[in-house]
Amino acid sequence: MQGDKNIAVVGAGLVGSLLSIHLRKLGFSVMLYDKSPDIRTVNFSGKSINMAISTRGWHALKTVGIEEEIREITIPMDKRAIHDQDGKITNQPYGINGEAIYSVSRGDLNRKIIELAEQAGTQFRFNHKIFDVSLEDATLLAGVNEEEAKVFAHDIVFGADGAFSKIRQKMQRQNRFNFSQYFLHLGYKELCIPSNQDGTHRIDSNSFHIWPRKDFMLIALPNMDGSFTCTLFMPFEGTHSFETINTETKLKSFFETFFPDTLELMPSLIEDYFTNPTSSLVTTQCYPWVYKDRIALIGDAAHAIVPFYGQGMNAGFEDITELFHQIENGNNDWAAIMQEYQKARKPNGDAIAELSFRNFKEMGTDTADEMFLLQKKIEAKFTKKHPNSWLPLYDRVSFTLQPYSEVLEIGNRQQQIMKEVMEQPDIKEIWQSDAVDELILKKLNQE
Amino acid sequence: MQGDKNIAVVGAGLVGSLLSIHLRKLGFSVMLYDKSPDIRTVNFSGKSINMAISTRGWHALKTVGIEEEIREITIPMDKRAIHDQDGKITNQPYGINGEAIYSVSRGDLNRKIIELAEQAGTQFRFNHKIFDVSLEDATLLAGVNEEEAKVFAHDIVFGADGAFSKIRQKMQRQNRFNFSQYFLHLGYKELCIPSNQDGTHRIDSNSFHIWPRKDFMLIALPNMDGSFTCTLFMPFEGTHSFETINTETKLKSFFETFFPDTLELMPSLIEDYFTNPTSSLVTTQCYPWVYKDRIALIGDAAHAIVPFYGQGMNAGFEDITELFHQIENGNNDWAAIMQEYQKARKPNGDAIAELSFRNFKEMGTDTADEMFLLQKKIEAKFTKKHPNSWLPLYDRVSFTLQPYSEVLEIGNRQQQIMKEVMEQPDIKEIWQSDAVDELILKKLNQE
Repeated sequence: MQGDKNIAVVGAGLVGSLLSIHLRKLGFSVMLYDKSPDIRTVNFSGKSINMAISTRGWHALKTVGIEEEIREITIPMDKRAIHDQDGKITNQPYGINGEAIYSVSRGDLNRKIIELAEQAGTQFRFNHKIFDVSLEDATLLAGVNEEEAKVFAHDIVFGADGAFSKIRQKMQRQNRFNFSQYFLHLGYKELCIPSNQDGTHRIDSNSFHIWPRKDFMLIALPNMDGSFTCTLFMPFEGTHSFETINTETKLKSFFETFFPDTLELMPSLIEDYFTNPTSSLVTTQCYPWVYKDRIALIGDAAHAIVPFYGQGMNAGFEDITELFHQIENGNNDWAAIMQEYQKARKPNGDAIAELSFRNFKEMGTDTADEMFLLQKKIEAKFTKKHPNSWLPLYDRVSFTLQPYSEVLEIGNRQQQIMKEVMEQPDIKEIWQSDAVDELILKKLNQE
Repeated sequence: MQGDKNIAVVGAGLVGSLLSIHLRKLGFSVMLYDKSPDIRTVNFSGKSINMAISTRGWHALKTVGIEEEIREITIPMDKRAIHDQDGKITNQPYGINGEAIYSVSRGDLNRKIIELAEQAGTQFRFNHKIFDVSLEDATLLAGVNEEEAKVFAHDIVFGADGAFSKIRQKMQRQNRFNFSQYFLHLGYKELCIPSNQDGTHRIDSNSFHIWPRKDFMLIALPNMDGSFTCTLFMPFEGTHSFETINTETKLKSFFETFFPDTLELMPSLIEDYFTNPTSSLVTTQCYPWVYKDRIALIGDAAHAIVPFYGQGMNAGFEDITELFHQIENGNNDWAAIMQEYQKARKPNGDAIAELSFRNFKEMGTDTADEMFLLQKKIEAKFTKKHPNSWLPLYDRVSFTLQPYSEVLEIGNRQQQIMKEVMEQPDIKEIWQSDAVDELILKKLNQE
């Protein structure tokens, strides 16, 4: 008896629309609300970073049998391609065994999942903004504007409506609701590398391209049509910032100095830079995530994170996996289902927030650092020899289903060990020796 | 030319009303808004913890010459009186040199400051709830209810309207406004020890009484009329909690077990417990605190903290001191005054939040611990011998004007040293020996 509930999902983004497919698979009737028009009918661009689907994301897609259909619109990236200031490129493989993460544009992916949701029997109320939600009886006041808004009754409401969730705002008014929002000093702007005339990619399509410049960085992720979606991360204020780089001359000079190899790749740089919005990056954390047996937050609505580990969507998809599992095994006891869901996911939401926050330094600074590369090599070598004792942090996050909270803890221990290893005075000479392996083993056994 | 501004202060609590006196002293015209009636006309009780004025608080009162008038309504407490479960009392002096903190009921203090504010020329709009504030032109929409609310124009608005500040809520809607609210698992309830029939105190009036029971605790602070305002801090849920202690029988049995010596002191225990509200404890942090040259948050509106260091009001009063200093020296450049104010106070707000949070453990657990008492004695002895090298954390917080952020840092260093000292295996025997002094000196010099 799973299907006897009339469920509302608020937010037809990636998490909301995939959640609706999972709920349909369990037999519920599902109404998906979104304040915007159907994304399949509009042009979506200019303000997003490409998605990178990794193992946790694939797992959720597989549960409802749509993994292969999604894979068709993605491009595997098995390495970082680091562009230095002279245009020299260094490749850094992502996985120990050649694993890849998969690039897809947010718009393409969202359109595809909406289509699959429709096929699965999800119903839609697009152009329905939420003006109120009643926590007590799970009704929504929704419509194109407040005057025309109507009350819609449901048994359960899922808030998948993003970092500035309306559903969470209502929950926030309860006493003892913990909440934080923290904005990074960095903003971001979408830029573009178009395809060659024949539709091929202008730079290697199986790489996650990074131009790390410490306080700011540029990245480029491939699209199916031969283009790359680029994102410039830069402080809002300061020496090199969105505030100071405010004329065509300054922009050109900035790119000539720091990203000289991109100038011929980005013919629309000036137009894109001055047309596309500068967006902010926020981390939100809250608790509780649920209200009794009928309201729950999921994805960014529960835990918006910064994008530097490429895990925002993957973490949201993993929320769905957990919820699906709890519903399947929950005997229709929704109060318990909701509790178990938040108990399982809250520590993981906090952990991936922390990991993502830290990773800006890895992407913007460490990837350009010789010792960081050496550490990666030592870890890779050790992992191959002792696969049951070690797995680098990046691999755990991106290529396993190990809970993020465990990954964070193990990652901290591993980093402590590697710090001591890298402090060996002659590490550059001896890194391939057995002595280094033995040192790591010894440290591991000391714990 | 200080006085050419028409200033609104929102919130006629302790910080708002004292701020108005400071602004009057600088010659500004000041309108003080509060959503409640004039506290001098109403009965105020049942939901507060007594205030403890310490050095930072006195300093702000002195600036406007009202120190002595306030002192008359306070009672000095020069020690903690720790009540164990058998009713035995141990005294722990607060200061190295007999310093005291000063107990006063919130209602009495607030009434007195309002009276002094009126004498200083502050004008009042009581029964004026704030429905909107315009950040751009510093106007307030205020009134007894939304229908009758009017627009009031000012040059500058100070939000002194507490942990759930309306002014902050409006600032929060700006992009990139950092905010967090974190509720403790503990709640609190006001209880009462009345005076003897002759108006004298039933237990020592110059002590801050604590019944520390680890996960919960009872405190009592003296009032001028011979009574004590008591506060029971206890988890909302769990074994011993406001949720589980929900009948007269359970309450009596709970007090008989844990606070047996209070039963005859608190004749109205049952009535108070079941009549007075259970309040929650929140820490809020935000940034920025100011908007351009015209809006600023102050006191709890900027940094609500938990009460375990007795510094909430003192920290708010110190905000006033800083602001007063910036205005005095600011040449009427209000954009700069606001910036300097928030730059100076934000790190201190964060530091006292952290210190207050930690201090529940000190009050609820450590004060009952023999080794904690020994550490206090060792620190006191060392301080007397080396007054330029050492001052215990409590003394720095309560009896100096050293910035909280420095106090936190030094306190952490001192605690690290004392941890090592207390780990000496024979510390109980040798604590008075020169060897211990020398160990501390050595650790201090190692830094």
